[in-house]
Amino acid sequence: MSAAAGVDVGGTKCLGVVIDDAGEVVATTRRLTPRGGGALIDVLAEIVDELGAGQSLGSIGIGLPGLITRGGVLRASPNVPEVFELDVAGLLGDRLGRVVAVSNDATAAAYAEWQVGAGQGVEDIVMVTLGTGIGGGVVAGGRLIVGENGFAGEFGHMVVDPVGPPCPCGRRGCWERFASGSGLAQLARTAAVGGRLGRVVEVAGGDPALVRGEHVQSAAREGDAEALAVVDEFARWVALGLVNLTNALDPARFVLGGGLAEGADLYFGPIERWFDQLLYAPELRPHPGLAFAALGERAGAIGAAMLSRSA
Amino acid sequence: MSAAAGVDVGGTKCLGVVIDDAGEVVATTRRLTPRGGGALIDVLAEIVDELGAGQSLGSIGIGLPGLITRGGVLRASPNVPEVFELDVAGLLGDRLGRVVAVSNDATAAAYAEWQVGAGQGVEDIVMVTLGTGIGGGVVAGGRLIVGENGFAGEFGHMVVDPVGPPCPCGRRGCWERFASGSGLAQLARTAAVGGRLGRVVEVAGGDPALVRGEHVQSAAREGDAEALAVVDEFARWVALGLVNLTNALDPARFVLGGGLAEGADLYFGPIERWFDQLLYAPELRPHPGLAFAALGERAGAIGAAMLSRSA
Repeated sequence: MSAAAGVDVGGTKCLGVVIDDAGEVVATTRRLTPRGGGALIDVLAEIVDELGAGQSLGSIGIGLPGLITRGGVLRASPNVPEVFELDVAGLLGDRLGRVVAVSNDATAAAYAEWQVGAGQGVEDIVMVTLGTGIGGGVVAGGRLIVGENGFAGEFGHMVVDPVGPPCPCGRRGCWERFASGSGLAQLARTAAVGGRLGRVVEVAGGDPALVRGEHVQSAAREGDAEALAVVDEFARWVALGLVNLTNALDPARFVLGGGLAEGADLYFGPIERWFDQLLYAPELRPHPGLAFAALGERAGAIGAAMLSRSA
Repeated sequence: MSAAAGVDVGGTKCLGVVIDDAGEVVATTRRLTPRGGGALIDVLAEIVDELGAGQSLGSIGIGLPGLITRGGVLRASPNVPEVFELDVAGLLGDRLGRVVAVSNDATAAAYAEWQVGAGQGVEDIVMVTLGTGIGGGVVAGGRLIVGENGFAGEFGHMVVDPVGPPCPCGRRGCWERFASGSGLAQLARTAAVGGRLGRVVEVAGGDPALVRGEHVQSAAREGDAEALAVVDEFARWVALGLVNLTNALDPARFVLGGGLAEGADLYFGPIERWFDQLLYAPELRPHPGLAFAALGERAGAIGAAMLSRSA
């Protein structure tokens, strides 16, 4: 092997890394994510050029949010504005004059966590990224699962409450309405507008409509009982989705990533407790382990680089 | 290869088959499922002896309902009374003096449908058996997925309505409360007790409490509007779970088996229509195919035999 470059395209920034044979990051760079497909290809080419200056890159991988086909086309992504049906593999490959491997960002992150992060040592993991929405990836039987079209791991739109709140996707009660960062904020605002969460509203500056997840976390860390109750409600929704994935896939371990990882100390206990209560036949089976992601914001870029090696 | 024997243990009967190299069934036998673990091992040994009389069996596989460990232990099954923690692989292997491969019955059925049934020709299928409860199996990336403990594919206990009706498993709103044979009966009885479903109640003999799924099917086939409405509600719940599995696994095809297959002509259209409405980004992705199982009640036994070849 040789050095491999990986770039993770986020809603705000593009993060590029170079990894060595062991998967260690030896260089990083970042740019703002531009608007529009042409500009995105330009920025990706710049990042790869910068990462490749002074060293030979054995392979190049790109991780993108949204529905990414096996052929490397970004069909659409709520987080990459003004980009539809963008043939990233083709356009960037032509620009660079070499093969580019393109993956879903959360799938790439799952692969990286499995190889060199919190998912090491087992053959079956499910990574769930709890950010603004929910994404994820599946490793089963010692192999990354991508699905027929490359769309496996879109856990956020599993319906967990058919009469639940509307989702921007057009359906109701998707898991990410409850168990994501925006879900936590919504649970908290509902409680705050209903007159609860006095301390949380205070932390948020006094307006119940401005309550966000981090305000709940701050108040919960102070021991505020109402904030802790919201954390518990949030943890129940997270656990419910994890239970559903356990029934389907029986992973050895869940790796939780995304913004939630910052509140790990608050959520870990409640998620595990609810998991026990919601799992089918909990007394007859070893429970999956619960780990928080180890690679942080670089997981997607590292995974994209790693996947480019086997593309 | 040579002939392989497979036995599928059901709640009522045990069905044994011998398959040839091509997966064709060349012999079958059946016995009533006895009560208790010792008696079950006796019956399984009898079936294998009968299937092996006059021919050499290259390998032997058993499919069992419930939580079956990778080591071949039946931990518990709602459908096999008075049997817990039964080491089927060890006890039957000792009795027969040879290796016995033990699998979950729905996982085995999924493998058989993929190899020689309705799932042929693609690399990613999800089989869902809609019987009294719901079971299933997953083939992803061209391999059967069994999970860390062997428990993958227990789709029936995915929670799809956290405040839904209680499930015998101890939780609420499990998918099989709605989308199984007993789910259909429950949807129908609720409607009948509420004064609807006049024709269905008539077909059932006049007592709303005795309405079962087949009465709904009969009346729906006559064109009864109220019965068709229950079929539509049932199809919505089936589709909801299939959508959740699509988000997680992105299969090329669903294979639906179990008792539902008998009503295929009634359900097919409504399930497809609801699937379109419930799937995330339906316009941006090819939809999974929807097929009804081709191997009927023999799928589990055929799959158990096939899996014994690679054990």
